[in-house]
Amino acid sequence: MPAEARNVLALTGGVGGAKLALGLADCLAPEALHLVANTGDDFEHLGLHISPDIDTLIYTLAGLSNPQQGWGLDGETFHALEALGRLGGETWFRLGDRDLATHLWRSCQLAAGQTLQEVTAALARSLGVAQQVYPMCNEAVRTNVHCEGRVLPFQRYFVGERCAPPVSGFAFDGIERAAPVPALRQLLDRGAFAQVVICPSNPFVSIDPILQVPGLWQALREQPAPVTLVSPIVAGAALKGPAAKMMAELGVPASATGVAQHYARRYPGLLDHFVIDHSDGTLAADIAALGMQAAVTSTVMTTREHKRALAQFVLRLVESER
Amino acid sequence: MPAEARNVLALTGGVGGAKLALGLADCLAPEALHLVANTGDDFEHLGLHISPDIDTLIYTLAGLSNPQQGWGLDGETFHALEALGRLGGETWFRLGDRDLATHLWRSCQLAAGQTLQEVTAALARSLGVAQQVYPMCNEAVRTNVHCEGRVLPFQRYFVGERCAPPVSGFAFDGIERAAPVPALRQLLDRGAFAQVVICPSNPFVSIDPILQVPGLWQALREQPAPVTLVSPIVAGAALKGPAAKMMAELGVPASATGVAQHYARRYPGLLDHFVIDHSDGTLAADIAALGMQAAVTSTVMTTREHKRALAQFVLRLVESER
Repeated sequence: MPAEARNVLALTGGVGGAKLALGLADCLAPEALHLVANTGDDFEHLGLHISPDIDTLIYTLAGLSNPQQGWGLDGETFHALEALGRLGGETWFRLGDRDLATHLWRSCQLAAGQTLQEVTAALARSLGVAQQVYPMCNEAVRTNVHCEGRVLPFQRYFVGERCAPPVSGFAFDGIERAAPVPALRQLLDRGAFAQVVICPSNPFVSIDPILQVPGLWQALREQPAPVTLVSPIVAGAALKGPAAKMMAELGVPASATGVAQHYARRYPGLLDHFVIDHSDGTLAADIAALGMQAAVTSTVMTTREHKRALAQFVLRLVESER
Repeated sequence: MPAEARNVLALTGGVGGAKLALGLADCLAPEALHLVANTGDDFEHLGLHISPDIDTLIYTLAGLSNPQQGWGLDGETFHALEALGRLGGETWFRLGDRDLATHLWRSCQLAAGQTLQEVTAALARSLGVAQQVYPMCNEAVRTNVHCEGRVLPFQRYFVGERCAPPVSGFAFDGIERAAPVPALRQLLDRGAFAQVVICPSNPFVSIDPILQVPGLWQALREQPAPVTLVSPIVAGAALKGPAAKMMAELGVPASATGVAQHYARRYPGLLDHFVIDHSDGTLAADIAALGMQAAVTSTVMTTREHKRALAQFVLRLVESER
């Protein structure tokens, strides 16, 4: 088997997914790990281009993230934001001083004509991240959350309103004009991956935007490597964020089975393995009935060792098939 | 005399001029003091609109400026700039974290369609400055410094190259399309000022851009109030900045007389009073020969009391004429 065939591709949203990404980084050579981040959460704020999931992923891999909250930088200060507040500026999105540099720098690079793929790769390199980090696409895709007749841009819903409004659906504005970033497309086209991992991220607002980039989920299904999803729902609750609340509001069972049904319906034939927590072991038969192999382990990643162990488990699912 | 007739208009650049502006603020009711700042130093940097002279003036009047350097904010941190440096971003222009908020906020307001006059007034109000602060114009004017065949944008010359290259001239790009800000134009048109003060700022790069806004210096000459200039050159040296060095490079005597000649040649009939330092007392006759009344006092403003005393002296020059 060529060395390249051991490449692993992981799709991820923000905090929850980045935990498994860090575990995978602990288990694989840096050149073998390729990470695709959701950019449906990106937004323009204070004239800056902010890519929350890319930054969370890179800060996490760089060992710079705030360990309590999972996003933002450790030891961050908020002097600019405080001063902005005194001027009557918008402070609902908590931008730290060092984090602000990331957004200023990215915005300048984009304004100078760089693609988001190029800027993301350069950001990762500058912060010492040796893995390959890609945005899902270079084009602007913006998640809008439909809430009881209102349409909220994602960060307004997520940060501004703390996910309080009940949701009825999601739209990914601009996605019809998007394409997988060229670097990812090329790797997929030549069957470069030995495994594809979908990290335990929100199905609706983290993974759906990635998979709905035109042609992407079909390309993932058609490439030879098995696709493994780690359930973001454990014992009826989200590991992180509003996934379970959204499922309840959408009338989907807030369970690992509900997640599996969502993927089976939207992306038939995509998932080969579905990893669930021991506490959801009784759901294995339901998941198998959807055409996926259910695998049971501990999926709650509190410590670095948990992240590494879950990554190891996920990787061995596929290694054991060879 | 109507109350409005006691209004004072002061034209100023950055650090040096802001000292006298603060002295004037100590001597006058806030509603009586109108300050016009040079915007030829403004520039776009990191995608932000930066107005160094406006900010120096407002920070000084607000009591927020760094007392050692005269510009920037006291107690400032530079976390964003340090992080930007790690990303390979531009750090030659020292932007503090709190100062960055000013530029972010201003840039957003301008992008939303506010004029620089409106944004400047709002910034002053937000920081507790009750005097009226105006940019010289709403249009973009950019000072370029001609240096031995090179043309340097002002901040590149001033900050980037620390005023080292010898200068041969200056150009104010865009000035032909500029107009005095409407609020100033209206006050001038109705003869609202009792005195006009030109603060001890650089004649070439702080005051010339203001006076060369089309129609402005002629309007100042035609309005009824006397115009008083405080020499920025004392005993052959600049109070602050590169004025004396520029004069030597331009072949102009680096003296208060040289400054007076510059104004007499470019703006004939504009200046009524020319305030010089005791150490330049022997130049009074030369200045009088240029058609201005020379007035001699202590012009070096080290302490707050010096600023107030010089402002008092300047104001009494005109009060004594009534």
